[in-house]
This record gives sequence, structure tokens and C-alpha cells, in this order.
Amino acid sequence: MGFGRTLGESVRRVGNPVVVGIDPRAESLPSRYLEQFEATLGGRAEAYRVFGRGVVDVVGGMVPAVKFQAAFYEALGPRGLVALQDTMEYARGKGLLVILDGKRNDIGSTAEAYAQAYLGEVALGGTNVAPWDADALTINPYLGGDGITPFSQVASARGKGLFVLVKTSNPSSRDLQDLVADGKPIYRHVAESLANWAAPYRDESGYSLVGAVVGATYPEQLAELREALPGVTFLVPGYGTQGGTAKDVAAAFDGEGMGAVVNNSRGLTFAYLRKDLAARFGANWQAAIEAATKEMIDDLAANTPAGKLRTV
Amino acid sequence: MGFGRTLGESVRRVGNPVVVGIDPRAESLPSRYLEQFEATLGGRAEAYRVFGRGVVDVVGGMVPAVKFQAAFYEALGPRGLVALQDTMEYARGKGLLVILDGKRNDIGSTAEAYAQAYLGEVALGGTNVAPWDADALTINPYLGGDGITPFSQVASARGKGLFVLVKTSNPSSRDLQDLVADGKPIYRHVAESLANWAAPYRDESGYSLVGAVVGATYPEQLAELREALPGVTFLVPGYGTQGGTAKDVAAAFDGEGMGAVVNNSRGLTFAYLRKDLAARFGANWQAAIEAATKEMIDDLAANTPAGKLRTV
Repeated sequence: MGFGRTLGESVRRVGNPVVVGIDPRAESLPSRYLEQFEATLGGRAEAYRVFGRGVVDVVGGMVPAVKFQAAFYEALGPRGLVALQDTMEYARGKGLLVILDGKRNDIGSTAEAYAQAYLGEVALGGTNVAPWDADALTINPYLGGDGITPFSQVASARGKGLFVLVKTSNPSSRDLQDLVADGKPIYRHVAESLANWAAPYRDESGYSLVGAVVGATYPEQLAELREALPGVTFLVPGYGTQGGTAKDVAAAFDGEGMGAVVNNSRGLTFAYLRKDLAARFGANWQAAIEAATKEMIDDLAANTPAGKLRTV
Repeated sequence: MGFGRTLGESVRRVGNPVVVGIDPRAESLPSRYLEQFEATLGGRAEAYRVFGRGVVDVVGGMVPAVKFQAAFYEALGPRGLVALQDTMEYARGKGLLVILDGKRNDIGSTAEAYAQAYLGEVALGGTNVAPWDADALTINPYLGGDGITPFSQVASARGKGLFVLVKTSNPSSRDLQDLVADGKPIYRHVAESLANWAAPYRDESGYSLVGAVVGATYPEQLAELREALPGVTFLVPGYGTQGGTAKDVAAAFDGEGMGAVVNNSRGLTFAYLRKDLAARFGANWQAAIEAATKEMIDDLAANTPAGKLRTV
């Protein structure tokens, strides 16, 4: 089954487009509520593993997907990556789609190695092994088409997806992405290339396995890009802590409330730090995640076309 | 000591600017000459480790630096990253500077996590640990300035360096990097930003810790960028297998033969596959690497300003 349909069905099943971003920042971790781990890279990796599984236990069945930020796991060396792999597998086991936010990119033959790593399989003697088996990976487009093709080919063969950075949520995304060439900003040029990369991979859902990352913090560009990229699912970061609101992301959806998933990382997983939720739930950091996730689901349902996904 | 000077001193010590790229592609590995490893991800990771150490044993003392391509190690899951970490440490122990080619990129607060991971330290209780301790990391500039600053800050604090992609060596680099905005191609816009990012970090050698990746396959742009970016060391990929010649890379150097290092991966580490070298060295794949590396050193000395580095 194509990833366009896979993601769409997951969204319809839970009735909302929320992606819970798992970014285990050590300084924000509810470590005082977890068991104590020794102050080593391995000990911290174990804390990330326990925390990540704890998040998954709460949001499995509530949302369609989780997004892991690779950087925080890589910052613990190979042991961090053992924790990442464990948590990714655990999330898939709980029926969540797993997006790995690695923003990988390289020239053709090396891009192929990244594609095999995260979305594909490695041939070992007579058998194939999927080293990471993410459902989708984020990709940086600076290297052009031959840095994208290997990812879409591998993804197509295995029912996986990719999300190509188009307009990112950070303030400096203007530096390069908004430069105007031939009367159009660079992000529009990337979007036009992306439309070509996506077209061959649209499935019966109408959506392609090739998606786009478009930040909630630039609502006008979000609307413009939605228009320019029918059949392309948007992964929208920047809701919540970075300042994006439900109204800002409304334009990311098609008329049925499909075509976009909206990520929130710190605002959900570190919700226990919010004064109001701390007062309600105290040491129960998982209850705080659940409450914050429900709040985001309701906010998107009330203020965006995603409200049409509600089954109840 | 600033990385500009560190790299310059390494180049002067060995008298050449060659970077040996370690890209362990399983299908090209001299595995029939290595011990047999079991057909598992762990077995292949062990083969990569043994191969990488074998490369380092040959080129330690011959060249200033090695460059590890992260993708191939990541393709073996966490065990591949154990092999990468081991080989990086082994290379540093042999006096080689270690460039990690990860092309990392993210928004500010996450870029900081990548910077700490690969160039910096992680605070653990009372002590700091360097998870990867590369000497330099490659960075993708698509996210703009706030995706670069965290890397230069961490690098500055620890004597490390970065190489920002400006003009990559692949055919599709034209797609985005050559679009013309305000009369200048995008890679020139990136170069101008890079000049600003680099300027505060120039040290007594005249070179900054912020370097640039500029492909050997685009010699005109190489010359143009050398002119535009004084004080910025170029990491030049694309020599050899990708088609770049010594004459193509000549313009990357300053008048003293400094200011650039030239990478070659497959052409050196898989030299045993060359008919002429196979005839001379047979099963001795390390002798083939040594011969090919000497050949590249001589080629650059004869056809570029790097000849001035020769101490003999």
C-alpha cells in the first residue's frame, strides 16, 4: 500500500492529524519522576528509552504518528541510537506510524545508502534486514533531484514515505528559502520540483508518498503551497512552542481535513512543565501528555478542516 | 587553537592536502581478503571496523585527514555506529584529523544538539563527555543562519571546524544551487552568508573554523568561490571517481597551496579494484591504497599550487 494511503487511513482511524514529536531534551525530561539513571551516556540513553516508551504508551491509539528527532539520540553516541531504535520499534508495535526527523541528504549513491538505512533493507547473504524501518524520513533538498530519487525509489518499494523540507519553521528560513529567482521564491522552486518528484507516486488516496515539510509559523506560505501542491501531504512543524496556532495551520488541509499532519513536540511531551497541568497532575507526567494531546486535537478540530475527521 | 590553524598545520606537516574518504560500501569492500564475518548487521559492522582501521593504518602520517561518510555506517543500525565511533577514535589516535560527513542541519535548538553530539560535549552530572569528538562536520545550509550559528559556537569553544555545503559535486546540484536570485546564483548567496559566518572565527593562520564544501566537478565555480571566500578552507569532493581532475581543483588553493583539502573516497580505499593495482598488489588491498594515495598526492603536487607544500 502506498504511504499516501497508509498515512491517510491512520489519520481517519483516530480522527485527527496530530503528530507527537519525541525530542528528548535532557534538561526538560521528567527525570525526577523517572527512576534514577547513572550519569553516563548509557544511563541517559536508558532514560530516553523509558521516556519515549512512556510517551508512546500514552499516545498510541490517540494519534496517527510520532516523530522522533534524531539529533537528541545521536547526541548520546551509539547508545542513544540503540534507545532510538528500541523506541521506534515499540511505537510501531503500538500501531503508530514512525516519522524519523533526520533531515538526511547527500549525492545520489550516498543518498541511496541513507534510503536503505532508514526506509529500506540491507541485503545480507540470502536475507534482507531493515536496519531502522521508519515509516517516513525527512529530507533536505539542497542537493537537487538526484539526492531525492533514491529515497522515493526505496520508499515506493516498501510502502514508506518521505517529507522534503520546503519552508521550515525557523526565523532564518528566510535567508535562503525566500530568495527570489525568476520571480518566485526558492521554496516555490523546491515546491515545483517536489510536485514532479511526487506525481509518479500518488496512490488511490490521491496523495503521494512524497510529502513536504512546511512550517506553521508561515501561514501565508502554507496556504500558497497547499494550492501549489495537490496530492502532497504536509508535515507541519511549529505549532505550539514555536508560536504556530490552529488558525495558522488551517490552510494546510484539503476540504476533507486530509492532506496534512501537524507536529507538536515540547508542547506535548513536556506538558508536565505547564503550570496548569502540573497543578492538575503533579508527578503524573503521562497524564499531562494525555491532557495536552487531547487539547491539541480539540483545538485543531475546532479551528481547522481537521474537524471533519471526527468520528464521534 | 582554532581549526583553521589546526588543519593548516596538519597539511603542512604531511606536505599535501589529501583527504581520504572512508565510505565502506559493502559491495566494494575487499571482504574476500578480510576474515570472514557472519552475514548479520553486527558482522558487517565488524567488517567495516576492520576495513576502516586498515585504511587508517595505511594513510596515518601520509595525509592530514580522513572523512567518514556517516550514511554507510547508519545503514547498519546502531552497530554500524559503534564501528564508526571506534574507527573515528582510532584515526584520531593515529594523528589524523577526522571529518564526519553527515550533512546535518536543523532549526536552532536542534542544531545545537547536533553540534554538541559531533563537535561538542554533553554535560552529565559533574562531568562533560564528547560523544563523537569529530574534528569537523559537514553542514547543509538550507535552513539559514540560525541553523549554522550553534555549530560555529560549539566548534569555536572546542577547536573544531565545520564545512558548509555551498556547491556540491553531483549533477543535480544545479537544480537549486544554480538558480539566480538578484543577479547571483544561490550558491553565491550561500557563499556571502558563509563569509559572514566565517569572519569572526578567522585565526592567526588567516583561515576560519568555518569552511565550505565546493565540488571539484564545477571548476569555474570553484575559482569564482575561491575569489569570493578568502579565509575559508574548501573541502573539495568529486576528485577521481566523480570525474574531477587535479587541474579542476587547482583554483581551490591560495598562492601558497593552502586553503583547500581534496577528498577522494572510492578511488583510494577501493584502489585494489583497479586492474593495474590488482596486477601489482593482488590480495594486498592496503598496498593498493598506499599506491593510489601517493599517486593522488603526486598528481596534486604536479598540477596545483599544493606542490609548494612539498618539504622534500
